[in-house]
Amino acid sequence: MRNVNQENITDAVLDSFANTPDPRLKVIVDSLVRHLHSFAREVKLTEGEWSKGIDYLTRVGHITDKKRQEFILLSDVLGLSMLTVCMNNERPLGCTEATVLGPFHVDGAPHYNLGDDVANGAKGAPCLVRGRVLGNNGQPVPNATLDIWQSDDDGLYDVQHPGGDQAQARGVLTSNEKGEYHFRSILAVPYAIPHDGPVGELLRASNRHPWRPAHLHFIVSAPGYKTLTTHVFRNDSDYLDSDAVFGVRESLVCDWVQKRDGSFLLEYEFVLDPAE
Amino acid sequence: MRNVNQENITDAVLDSFANTPDPRLKVIVDSLVRHLHSFAREVKLTEGEWSKGIDYLTRVGHITDKKRQEFILLSDVLGLSMLTVCMNNERPLGCTEATVLGPFHVDGAPHYNLGDDVANGAKGAPCLVRGRVLGNNGQPVPNATLDIWQSDDDGLYDVQHPGGDQAQARGVLTSNEKGEYHFRSILAVPYAIPHDGPVGELLRASNRHPWRPAHLHFIVSAPGYKTLTTHVFRNDSDYLDSDAVFGVRESLVCDWVQKRDGSFLLEYEFVLDPAE
Repeated sequence: MRNVNQENITDAVLDSFANTPDPRLKVIVDSLVRHLHSFAREVKLTEGEWSKGIDYLTRVGHITDKKRQEFILLSDVLGLSMLTVCMNNERPLGCTEATVLGPFHVDGAPHYNLGDDVANGAKGAPCLVRGRVLGNNGQPVPNATLDIWQSDDDGLYDVQHPGGDQAQARGVLTSNEKGEYHFRSILAVPYAIPHDGPVGELLRASNRHPWRPAHLHFIVSAPGYKTLTTHVFRNDSDYLDSDAVFGVRESLVCDWVQKRDGSFLLEYEFVLDPAE
Repeated sequence: MRNVNQENITDAVLDSFANTPDPRLKVIVDSLVRHLHSFAREVKLTEGEWSKGIDYLTRVGHITDKKRQEFILLSDVLGLSMLTVCMNNERPLGCTEATVLGPFHVDGAPHYNLGDDVANGAKGAPCLVRGRVLGNNGQPVPNATLDIWQSDDDGLYDVQHPGGDQAQARGVLTSNEKGEYHFRSILAVPYAIPHDGPVGELLRASNRHPWRPAHLHFIVSAPGYKTLTTHVFRNDSDYLDSDAVFGVRESLVCDWVQKRDGSFLLEYEFVLDPAE
């Protein structure tokens, strides 16, 4: 520690964390230091690039507020969010797969009765959504909680509208005694993730687009089952093969059927994995 | 990309960056993605830990302002700053070694004449600093610029004092035709890096202290030579073996001599490396 150089510094840093009392924190910090240093060594990071990195993270921090989470967006476009979801949500065959939460979930969304219109004025083609919540042996799951949210026809979530303090296309429902759910909402359309900040700058510099394929978010939870955070995607949507946040899984892509009156119908069965 | 899972996601993310036009950016992002994913896989990062990481970075961003740079502090305590300095400032034997810039440098510090007191009211035992700026063959370097700054007897830099908009213990001088410099300042003492924020939280959770050994900062520059960013440390200081930011190099540790009248004298010769 009294004569640090590029050969011994990683060991010096690891030694400095040697007395971390929480063993899990020690594992995480140890791995983080090794990988961070390996990255810097591999690219032979220059001082100017280090400065640009500090400036970039500073701007990510400064654009982040209660309604905008640029660090989550950055994690999303680097695939870290989806990797974390995949690693922590392995499910037996037949159970519904998980995908990213995204930055637009809001705790405490309004509760609705089955059949209600959760759009609450949000712009978009009417869409009826219905199906069942099942256990992995096909048994109905009554009283399952379905927390749902989506963007509107402009590709914006309620919280992205100026002064958007009213929940729109967002709500919580409970399945009935047969595990059934149904509600009215609007047709999901592709949208661009917020790209007027540092994350958008990275995407432009990489010739990447900011678009996500059309989807409806669900968090499905019930006592005795693992909570499922997922989307249902539209099978005729653009960007299914280039989701900006790497969230698409084939099993979550579904036919949203247009009816004669122009409105849509989405039917989807969620299959939950029992908690251990 | 249409069926992402924990096995194929890293390739999917690397593919998404494949068309990055700037080749250096592509190298950096490619390496960053691989190391970030390796880190998450190695520790099998949980969703709760991912959330804590997002929250941590958000707080680092929100405490950072024009006068406080918590991302630099974080880079410092993880050894990334010093690693970057070491990799980019290899010098031939005999040249003065570099160390970290730290977060307290201020552009545009006031200019002083040789012999002036740069303390400008900063609290501390008087200290005369003098020496020469030389080239690597021993030739004097006239008109070298010495940008110097240090903390005061309370362990605080001028910018850390409430409303501290006046430069204290901070200034810019120019060596004379013989390469000589001399100025009055104050005795450097050990100080704690700011630890009332997220970086302090990490240090406490790791049983690490926030202290740095006593030192005086220099940026020495002259036409025809590589700019040198370094410190001179006090050889009787605490924390030389446990600098919170890993900045100590044996060749930069020096005797600060106490004179009969209680004041101090530091003599140091800087040896610059010619620019390529």
